[in-house]
Amino acid sequence: MKSNVNIAIVGLGQVGIYLYNQLNLKKKDIEKKTGKKINLVAISARNKNKRRRFKISKNIFYSNPLLIFKKKKIDILFECVGLSDGISKKIVEQALKNKINVITPNKALIAKHGDYLSILAEKNKVNLEFEASVAGGIPILRTIKEGLATNKIRKVYGILNGTTNYILSEMEKTSQPFQVVLRKAQKLGYAEPGNPKLDLNGFDAFAKIRILSALSFNIKISNANSIMEGIENIKLEDIKIASQLGLRVKLLGITEIIKGQLFETVHPCLVNKNTYIGNVNGVMNAVITEGEPVGQSVMQGEGAGPGPTSSSLLSDLLSILRGNIKYPFGISSKKRKRIKAFNNNQYSNSLYLRFEVQDKQGVLSLITNRLSKYKISVKRIIQTPDKKNKKATIVIITHKTTEINIRNCLSIFRKNKYILKFPTLIRLYN
Amino acid sequence: MKSNVNIAIVGLGQVGIYLYNQLNLKKKDIEKKTGKKINLVAISARNKNKRRRFKISKNIFYSNPLLIFKKKKIDILFECVGLSDGISKKIVEQALKNKINVITPNKALIAKHGDYLSILAEKNKVNLEFEASVAGGIPILRTIKEGLATNKIRKVYGILNGTTNYILSEMEKTSQPFQVVLRKAQKLGYAEPGNPKLDLNGFDAFAKIRILSALSFNIKISNANSIMEGIENIKLEDIKIASQLGLRVKLLGITEIIKGQLFETVHPCLVNKNTYIGNVNGVMNAVITEGEPVGQSVMQGEGAGPGPTSSSLLSDLLSILRGNIKYPFGISSKKRKRIKAFNNNQYSNSLYLRFEVQDKQGVLSLITNRLSKYKISVKRIIQTPDKKNKKATIVIITHKTTEINIRNCLSIFRKNKYILKFPTLIRLYN
Repeated sequence: MKSNVNIAIVGLGQVGIYLYNQLNLKKKDIEKKTGKKINLVAISARNKNKRRRFKISKNIFYSNPLLIFKKKKIDILFECVGLSDGISKKIVEQALKNKINVITPNKALIAKHGDYLSILAEKNKVNLEFEASVAGGIPILRTIKEGLATNKIRKVYGILNGTTNYILSEMEKTSQPFQVVLRKAQKLGYAEPGNPKLDLNGFDAFAKIRILSALSFNIKISNANSIMEGIENIKLEDIKIASQLGLRVKLLGITEIIKGQLFETVHPCLVNKNTYIGNVNGVMNAVITEGEPVGQSVMQGEGAGPGPTSSSLLSDLLSILRGNIKYPFGISSKKRKRIKAFNNNQYSNSLYLRFEVQDKQGVLSLITNRLSKYKISVKRIIQTPDKKNKKATIVIITHKTTEINIRNCLSIFRKNKYILKFPTLIRLYN
Repeated sequence: MKSNVNIAIVGLGQVGIYLYNQLNLKKKDIEKKTGKKINLVAISARNKNKRRRFKISKNIFYSNPLLIFKKKKIDILFECVGLSDGISKKIVEQALKNKINVITPNKALIAKHGDYLSILAEKNKVNLEFEASVAGGIPILRTIKEGLATNKIRKVYGILNGTTNYILSEMEKTSQPFQVVLRKAQKLGYAEPGNPKLDLNGFDAFAKIRILSALSFNIKISNANSIMEGIENIKLEDIKIASQLGLRVKLLGITEIIKGQLFETVHPCLVNKNTYIGNVNGVMNAVITEGEPVGQSVMQGEGAGPGPTSSSLLSDLLSILRGNIKYPFGISSKKRKRIKAFNNNQYSNSLYLRFEVQDKQGVLSLITNRLSKYKISVKRIIQTPDKKNKKATIVIITHKTTEINIRNCLSIFRKNKYILKFPTLIRLYN
């Protein structure tokens, strides 16, 4: 890299504008650490005149980001728009083709087009870095690519979405229902005000899991059908019952190699309150890696917000300024294999099942008979009558059983007059 | 780095021999990840015929490690002897002068001679890497140098010694006294069988703190007089009383910038049982960094043993094989400043004081009067009489006070006939 480096930022939302400010603030520090002088020569966003947290210099503003390449010589481009396709993909593609290094926090883009874009980067001998796309300020990708590089990683899991972790923690703490806490999260800027769906339904965490799998196991990004569940169906009631049982609900992302096959999932889990993961609360993220010879290692930090994201974007910048070209996924794209997906049906867990039933004799035995028919053995039953409404809640903790088995077993409860709604299922993490 | 790389290992103790085996096992994986072929061309240890965990090839064995440089062309040397001076220093010095990259887990060497050796490395344009010197398998140095590179780090603290953390955890768990648990730790290989002193007295953790300070604050390694206390004086009684108060004893290392001055310390702390750090038990290490803009981030992992150490040694190897020359401490030695040390006397904490006294009227007021004379206010007093022996234990938790003040205050108790031994002091971490 030459000693004068031209930088462009496309996208001036929360993250882009914070980064803009940080780049100006840390210019000297960056020069001291790398010997390179950075010049912010172009910025772009949809609206030039929007009110922003920091003032922008309008004489470097471009309404059409694709024009930047024609007007300025850019060395490093920050893509901060955040779409999985559209202008995000177009601008990154164009940049790489023009031999411009790209840094992005965009997990949706990388999870969907990461393989293609990394080949493009390698072909054009530039860097494509995306540390900020997973777990905010935690330098987990660099740690896997470099710090744990020669380990054989078996499994990576953790809390990868700050929004949902905040909501679950807050529901338990305040005994307020989902919708109330969601509005609070939106007010505090932890959840998207318009459309928080991608956080809540597990999609965001899943994109991160896909990226972690590719890096940890040196494979192509998978596109297998996996179990992806969010927290939309977690009721305050479940959180309270779990708490009485010494458990806590967490949205976990998990990727592991089972019998040589890839298994990726995101779903709510019941974890023990006295475990490490059970005590990662609020907007915190945590990633746990299990490898040989390092054993288990844990990284925890703020998972969201422009501060932590900026920290990771700047670490990518320094990496590019200091070093030579690196493979986006740690090894050459040619050497990244595609591996078979583990059959979800065989995924096996202890389960928490909550039934809302009519308070009638025989309903409990109806349920337990059905479970027993599928050889699902029961570890614990808690029945709570609601005499006034002639209802009862039956919570059952089962021993381990497979997904296919429980699905077949529960199917009958979709239309049974004594079962008031389809039972809530939460897997236990062991 | 050329594509055929010659490697030497000096020191074949627990770590060296494990590394030797790993290098043989991971040759192909390393080639896949870096495109470089590694050849282990020389090994050295004091005793050629010692029984070792893995077989060594004796035709590459050197009794005198300094001869290696004369006989073979070496590109990368692993120093695994572990002394702060002597042959460790000599061999690293010689290697760097011969333009050979050096990788070492030797914290004693780096904490003592790191500044000198890094200048030597920079002058000869080779790498000196020491990831394994701090917190075993946790890639904390690389995280500070790269992942958090543009953050302004204010403070780094944590549990940096696995031996003492195991002993403290095990004392609490089993109610066995220090000496018994120490023998158990030695049997399990967690503590040095011959001389565990450097772990127990805080020296080992302190060397790591010195290295962390230099990296986190971009300063020279400090040699100021600091507060360094180990766990030798922690009694089972203290652990039990702490437990009743919801507290747990941990040996913490702390480095921070206070009013522009460097404050480094290692001493036992009482931490809340329900905090994160209070739940890092056994041989685990944990490092917490506080910085801007990233916020607080946590890394936890196995802190000792040849597996985690090897993981870090190999990550250094990959870093060298992949990249160009990097500054050992992240920035050029010329730019690393020396900063003033914070006056230890002004270090201020709430304190736990345990007095063993004669069970006589007036002793408690003797103590409280003395405290009050020094304006040390008391938060809590627990007096437990031992009628049979005409003794009593008085535990006092104070509000915050400075080191100098408490030292002056307590001095009188060295020779008072009612006070049976000089009081035990443990600082509370807040």
